[in-house]
Amino acid sequence: MMERLPGFRDFYPEPLPHKDVWSCDARQYLFDTWRATARRYGFREYDGPPLEPLELYTLKSGDEIVGQLYNFTDKGERAVALRPEMTPTLARMIAAHERNYKKPIKWFALPQLFRYERQQKGRLREHFQFNCDLFGENDPAADAELIALLIDVLRALKLTAEEFVIRLSSRRAWADFFAKRCADESKAYEFYQVIDKLERDDEAVSREKLAKLGFNLDDVRAFIAASEPTAELAAVLGNLAARGLREFVKIDYNVIRGLAYYTGVVFEAFDRKSEFRAIAGGGRYDNLVKLISGGKVDLPALGFGMGDVVLLELLKSRGLLPKFDAALDAFVMIEDETLRADSLRLVQTLRESGRAVDYALLPAKSDKQFKRAQELNVRHTVRLERAADGALAVRVKNLRTREEKTVAVSDAPAALA
Amino acid sequence: MMERLPGFRDFYPEPLPHKDVWSCDARQYLFDTWRATARRYGFREYDGPPLEPLELYTLKSGDEIVGQLYNFTDKGERAVALRPEMTPTLARMIAAHERNYKKPIKWFALPQLFRYERQQKGRLREHFQFNCDLFGENDPAADAELIALLIDVLRALKLTAEEFVIRLSSRRAWADFFAKRCADESKAYEFYQVIDKLERDDEAVSREKLAKLGFNLDDVRAFIAASEPTAELAAVLGNLAARGLREFVKIDYNVIRGLAYYTGVVFEAFDRKSEFRAIAGGGRYDNLVKLISGGKVDLPALGFGMGDVVLLELLKSRGLLPKFDAALDAFVMIEDETLRADSLRLVQTLRESGRAVDYALLPAKSDKQFKRAQELNVRHTVRLERAADGALAVRVKNLRTREEKTVAVSDAPAALA
Repeated sequence: MMERLPGFRDFYPEPLPHKDVWSCDARQYLFDTWRATARRYGFREYDGPPLEPLELYTLKSGDEIVGQLYNFTDKGERAVALRPEMTPTLARMIAAHERNYKKPIKWFALPQLFRYERQQKGRLREHFQFNCDLFGENDPAADAELIALLIDVLRALKLTAEEFVIRLSSRRAWADFFAKRCADESKAYEFYQVIDKLERDDEAVSREKLAKLGFNLDDVRAFIAASEPTAELAAVLGNLAARGLREFVKIDYNVIRGLAYYTGVVFEAFDRKSEFRAIAGGGRYDNLVKLISGGKVDLPALGFGMGDVVLLELLKSRGLLPKFDAALDAFVMIEDETLRADSLRLVQTLRESGRAVDYALLPAKSDKQFKRAQELNVRHTVRLERAADGALAVRVKNLRTREEKTVAVSDAPAALA
Repeated sequence: MMERLPGFRDFYPEPLPHKDVWSCDARQYLFDTWRATARRYGFREYDGPPLEPLELYTLKSGDEIVGQLYNFTDKGERAVALRPEMTPTLARMIAAHERNYKKPIKWFALPQLFRYERQQKGRLREHFQFNCDLFGENDPAADAELIALLIDVLRALKLTAEEFVIRLSSRRAWADFFAKRCADESKAYEFYQVIDKLERDDEAVSREKLAKLGFNLDDVRAFIAASEPTAELAAVLGNLAARGLREFVKIDYNVIRGLAYYTGVVFEAFDRKSEFRAIAGGGRYDNLVKLISGGKVDLPALGFGMGDVVLLELLKSRGLLPKFDAALDAFVMIEDETLRADSLRLVQTLRESGRAVDYALLPAKSDKQFKRAQELNVRHTVRLERAADGALAVRVKNLRTREEKTVAVSDAPAALA
């Protein structure tokens, strides 16, 4: 029996046939919610190729990234990679055509992303990610707009302020902290990496790593504990408070984001119980478009990404994923085979009116048809009946309310409302 | 400046910045229409990995397929390929878990597919395809159900019977034709290939190819011209006629479908003017699940695929693609900066009510804000106003009808209906 590649997922319709497969319905529920919320905020959808030149990623992240990429040489001898993240593609697209769009540019995408790390059995090699980005605005009002969107996406999935929190931080605050204590700018990224791992690493390990860079763990801890907002963060907090969203955010300088390219406000969304990895993360990256465009285009930028895997785990554990089925409006019962042609016409009429409808493809006993209708969890059964005068009428039964009525064929679509 | 790989597409929001890029809005319009129509027919969505073991494709199509695949060796030394079609993945998924689903199984997917043919400059190496398949039913009633769905997808895109036609044919009819004239079964596939190219190849070439196989072109032509429906095709035509869809189909034995795995009714959708390649194609493939499952599962099957590229070209040429914009319900004008916090709260309230809303992130002159609202083609402008008694009210202007009214803040969402 053929099997799929390790780290890849099959998505099936619910109810799921096996614990080893994923729900295509739940995935679509995320996609629909992501899209609808982004649109409420005036964000427009874009997409790029799932395969890009390898250089697009090494340019941004250095050659060390290659070890984590799903990269290969194609038949045209090009070094290529399945996209591990969307931001480089987006920066490339923005750099190419930003002149044609009024600022601020507010865009979103729902890409599938890939990575290949060796010796990571059982770990996924692909996931889907909701990406929202905003270009062309330096002011913290843009950061607040993006963070409000992040909050509202999670709220649209029925998560509350008791369930999640956005931890706000600032690369600028950390840069100031660093600059006051160390004159060697070249050590800054290494320092950020230690801060990024502070919550996961052993205390002694962090203390030693920091000491090597000339820093003191207690000093770092005191800075984090003070949680003194920068001017930008204060503006973001004020803006979110005006919207009534203050309870969803807190200053937390433990967050710094591992990636080198962030420049300002950074943030991560977590479940309050800290049972899961970050639900989403993002921040400002004002220099990336310039880097990707070879200096030709310079645009401030910020964005976040939210993956499907942690989010689905969280929603599942909190009982917030709906149950999915075929969501059919009606099952057309064909109990009198002389009425099959007329019943097919009725099926067609109902579908043309926008209703979701199924029926038995072949002659079957009435109770078997009804059983199928129940399995499909349809809202109504519908059957054609011939009156004594030969005229056709439609018998509609609402399976939720048990109500039954007979209507003219032309009124059948409305009877399913 | 970094560029995308040849044969791949960037999808931008409309209006498009350049003729070399594609519309993400038009793509989403196709996806939405495909999904909505499939659901009306009771089809459920599935998806599989975009990367599969190479063997999945060579098993079905032989080693010669490799020359057209985007295949490579991954870091784990596996021979893999970016999926060139969805059917093998689907057959694999069905074979693994069909026992858990009641028959008939009606599923659809919207995969991105890939191919790599050398020396095909300018030709796309990826496209999206709407795939609908039905498993577990031998009767032509299933073929009719699938073809009706194909017709209704094209109608949902506003194409009429004057614009397109489904050409119906039968592998079985051709198998009978072949068997009556040639005893060597092993030549059948080669014969089908010649028939498949009959409309494109030079007459002399076809005549010679057929003669080599022991066939006569005039004999073939007479068979096609007779268009005698098989019992299955007659049943399909009758079923579609009952639905009122007879005018969308015709028997046309020129269609045979190149792929080896079809077993029964086959069909292709074309624009009536024959300006474009096939819009969609499909048919019965009753042996594939057995092949892919190594003989473990035997299920009759049929399906079709419809690509996005030809379809978008056709819709564009017929003026059937809508114009897309941000589709915003309102732009909140902030003309009095002392009302910014309250205006942000109003933006939030409107968005929470489901409205799509934008506003100027930073203070801007009134006429500049209004210009932005017009660029975004919003339906309403909205502004907070403070009455003499200090109470806030909302001034709503409908930019389509020019109607203006003042409502309470709590009534603002309803005023945008």
